[in-house]
Amino acid sequence: MPRDTKMSKVGSNVTLINVMKLPGLNTLGISLARIDYAPLGENPPHTHPRATEILTVLEGTLYVGFVTSNTDNKLFSKVLNKGDVFVFPQGLIHFQFNPNSYKPAVAIAALSSQNPGAITIANAVFGSKPMISDDVLAKAFQVEKNTVDWLQAQFWADNHN
Amino acid sequence: MPRDTKMSKVGSNVTLINVMKLPGLNTLGISLARIDYAPLGENPPHTHPRATEILTVLEGTLYVGFVTSNTDNKLFSKVLNKGDVFVFPQGLIHFQFNPNSYKPAVAIAALSSQNPGAITIANAVFGSKPMISDDVLAKAFQVEKNTVDWLQAQFWADNHN
Amino acid sequence: MPRDTKMSKVGSNVTLINVMKLPGLNTLGISLARIDYAPLGENPPHTHPRATEILTVLEGTLYVGFVTSNTDNKLFSKVLNKGDVFVFPQGLIHFQFNPNSYKPAVAIAALSSQNPGAITIANAVFGSKPMISDDVLAKAFQVEKNTVDWLQAQFWADNHN
Amino acid sequence: MPRDTKMSKVGSNVTLINVMKLPGLNTLGISLARIDYAPLGENPPHTHPRATEILTVLEGTLYVGFVTSNTDNKLFSKVLNKGDVFVFPQGLIHFQFNPNSYKPAVAIAALSSQNPGAITIANAVFGSKPMISDDVLAKAFQVEKNTVDWLQAQFWADNHN
Amino acid sequence: MPRDTKMSKVGSNVTLINVMKLPGLNTLGISLARIDYAPLGENPPHTHPRATEILTVLEGTLYVGFVTSNTDNKLFSKVLNKGDVFVFPQGLIHFQFNPNSYKPAVAIAALSSQNPGAITIANAVFGSKPMISDDVLAKAFQVEKNTVDWLQAQFWADNHN
Amino acid sequence: MPRDTKMSKVGSNVTLINVMKLPGLNTLGISLARIDYAPLGENPPHTHPRATEILTVLEGTLYVGFVTSNTDNKLFSKVLNKGDVFVFPQGLIHFQFNPNSYKPAVAIAALSSQNPGAITIANAVFGSKPMISDDVLAKAFQVEKNTVDWLQAQFWADNHN
Repeated sequence: MPRDTKMSKVGSNVTLINVMKLPGLNTLGISLARIDYAPLGENPPHTHPRATEILTVLEGTLYVGFVTSNTDNKLFSKVLNKGDVFVFPQGLIHFQFNPNSYKPAVAIAALSSQNPGAITIANAVFGSKPMISDDVLAKAFQVEKNTVDWLQAQFWADNHN
Repeated sequence: MPRDTKMSKVGSNVTLINVMKLPGLNTLGISLARIDYAPLGENPPHTHPRATEILTVLEGTLYVGFVTSNTDNKLFSKVLNKGDVFVFPQGLIHFQFNPNSYKPAVAIAALSSQNPGAITIANAVFGSKPMISDDVLAKAFQVEKNTVDWLQAQFWADNHN
Repeated sequence: MPRDTKMSKVGSNVTLINVMKLPGLNTLGISLARIDYAPLGENPPHTHPRATEILTVLEGTLYVGFVTSNTDNKLFSKVLNKGDVFVFPQGLIHFQFNPNSYKPAVAIAALSSQNPGAITIANAVFGSKPMISDDVLAKAFQVEKNTVDWLQAQFWADNHN
Repeated sequence: MPRDTKMSKVGSNVTLINVMKLPGLNTLGISLARIDYAPLGENPPHTHPRATEILTVLEGTLYVGFVTSNTDNKLFSKVLNKGDVFVFPQGLIHFQFNPNSYKPAVAIAALSSQNPGAITIANAVFGSKPMISDDVLAKAFQVEKNTVDWLQAQFWADNHN
Repeated sequence: MPRDTKMSKVGSNVTLINVMKLPGLNTLGISLARIDYAPLGENPPHTHPRATEILTVLEGTLYVGFVTSNTDNKLFSKVLNKGDVFVFPQGLIHFQFNPNSYKPAVAIAALSSQNPGAITIANAVFGSKPMISDDVLAKAFQVEKNTVDWLQAQFWADNHN
Repeated sequence: MPRDTKMSKVGSNVTLINVMKLPGLNTLGISLARIDYAPLGENPPHTHPRATEILTVLEGTLYVGFVTSNTDNKLFSKVLNKGDVFVFPQGLIHFQFNPNSYKPAVAIAALSSQNPGAITIANAVFGSKPMISDDVLAKAFQVEKNTVDWLQAQFWADNHN
């Protein structure tokens, strides 16, 4: 059954699938997530500090990609249909986007750690608690400080309400 | 001797120190970098996919910090002076900023891998080659698409000229 | 599209899904397989020497299980339906069986190694080339030597024709 | 002094040698076993999920072997005399058999883990508690269900009395 | 500020720098030490069982080296000045010596483990509690037993007063 | 058959047992050595940078021990007879000595690495090529420089003739 994606501003819902818990299995080295995408919904740019990910599309279409590290910053991207598979290497920034305006999409992600971690870039950078100094972010993103302040207000509210 | 920080828009210069190369040492598990900061210069938000980092301030003052992963996004930050030490855990987004308008700063970073990798967030997100679709980034950062386009133009030029 | 299961005596077809090959990805630490089961087909008892496995049922119903190591030999088993998930810990003997006489089943298996290995118990024990001495197997399985000889003839033919 | 092998249906006795326990040694990465074999006794086909094994013959003669994984199922075997050494790679099915009708044999096994685990194939497959469905095993071993039932009755009694 | 080196017979003072303690950081994989050397002081031959080390000279001059394992026993050594860097591979015997009769020296050492361990050779061999039999040490170092006894008396007093 | 111990000044002979070489076994994670001891012979103080060791006495009697790291330098030692077992933790200095004036001894050592390495302390410290400065060693061992020079002459000749 599809998960609700209406509560999410970016239009996606990540469910860590509830695997059977067994005594002694605390070092499995693997985990699994189901991701539901609303029409035009996305799983925004993020990283997993401790896992490589393999994504399989179960329903619909997804535009996916990841960016390599300094100083290449090369984007590998692809449009995936049902049954297609894609790999996101450990620690690299990656995303999935449902380009269809009418139909939802569903994918299964397998991760090479029982504790992969996840860092959503926009939330960590602009929505941390307390906030990162806007001097730091204005220079890093080469925008005005009041642009940073506006972004921080928005993401801080998202994360901490 | 201080390294040149004038070529950098963000006002910093990272030098991987030239360690003695010996046959058979290709699996050291450690590396070292020297970082020079101009007045008000910074090492902007970035991650190392494969290393924890210990930073020691050799000269000047630094405001440093890192943000924890979802869904806490908690910022740990501190102002460091000469001789102070700080730890950035593997894979988390972190930064250093020189808050002094007149004096430069210098730090030594030890990293727990001979191949730590580095992803500068703004460059990877907005400066990838080819660019990430602005639909994806507008929704992720909750800004207008023309704001994304402007940022992409700027960072793309930085990375690929 | 369903894979052909008619060529298999046990009624299953394991396909290592063709993930995108990229330079430098040779240490992914993860792999993926699609398994098709005929009605009453099975993936017979086997082990993966180097991987834990997470199985997700995409279509149909599966009776699955694994047995713990000496001296407990405890069976953990379950009947799974579409969307259900099950974990097989590294190195333990496990199986999947489609109990439905009319409908096929399909599952996706994620494995915590890019090179998990697989040992099908009956084939390795009775179908090795050259054969294991029937003295050894008769005592191990507590059957007559001519029973062992008959099993070896059968599996040897399967494996090596 | 020789260990008793009369209580064992397969004619062997595996003793985990009692290593000196020291505070802080709980992550040794190695363990040791002494194995006594009656005349015509054997250590039946089994695997260690977490260890490679090196076997040294201390007394007598042993026919030993292991089988490689799918789809080769190649048997590497050898007759070993006093002082001879053999390697069983991690996770592969292996055995030792004393082919002498009159003399016992003794061996020392070093294992590359402080917790190697052991799965005796016949016991795990036919003697699990509860039993694996005989539908599964009949198809896997390509025998009649009543043959499976008879084997299960026998091994279940061995394991669980 | 310089650390006191007067209490040390060998003229050095190793300070494990007090890194910020954070919940969950107990598996950092890295640590840091500051070492102060008196004029003609030294950090005598020692090993780290669980870490490679990178040394950076902050002040003064150091003659440093390490010896490879059997049967080469090759010495790699170098005179380092301020800013120079040197690598000591995991488990190998190494040392640093300040050859200047008037000026102290200071270095920072980064180690590839949060628990690197340290074994000072002379103290472990001659100053253990209880003492190693002088038969063993006389033969190992090819000296008279009363020479061993004299060394043991001296180091035992150092270690255990 | 016993190995020759007459060529050795310390009265021992370490033989890396010739394990069966197989394609693909280059990451075994384990190795094995046979050690022969002359009457009053010894395997002098040494470390293995990359392995824990389990020793089993096959013939005779051995006085064995290891010393813990700084700053305890605690000696754990024991007299072992035929069949006794002892553990030497990774990286710690350890030795074996045959206290019997008439009978030889034999032991088997299992090591938790296919490439354990070995550093004989006296040879590495006093017999390196080129030699370590006698200033360094005189201060480290708190002896006169001419004592160091005499030891170096002796061990250098042993190692490099």
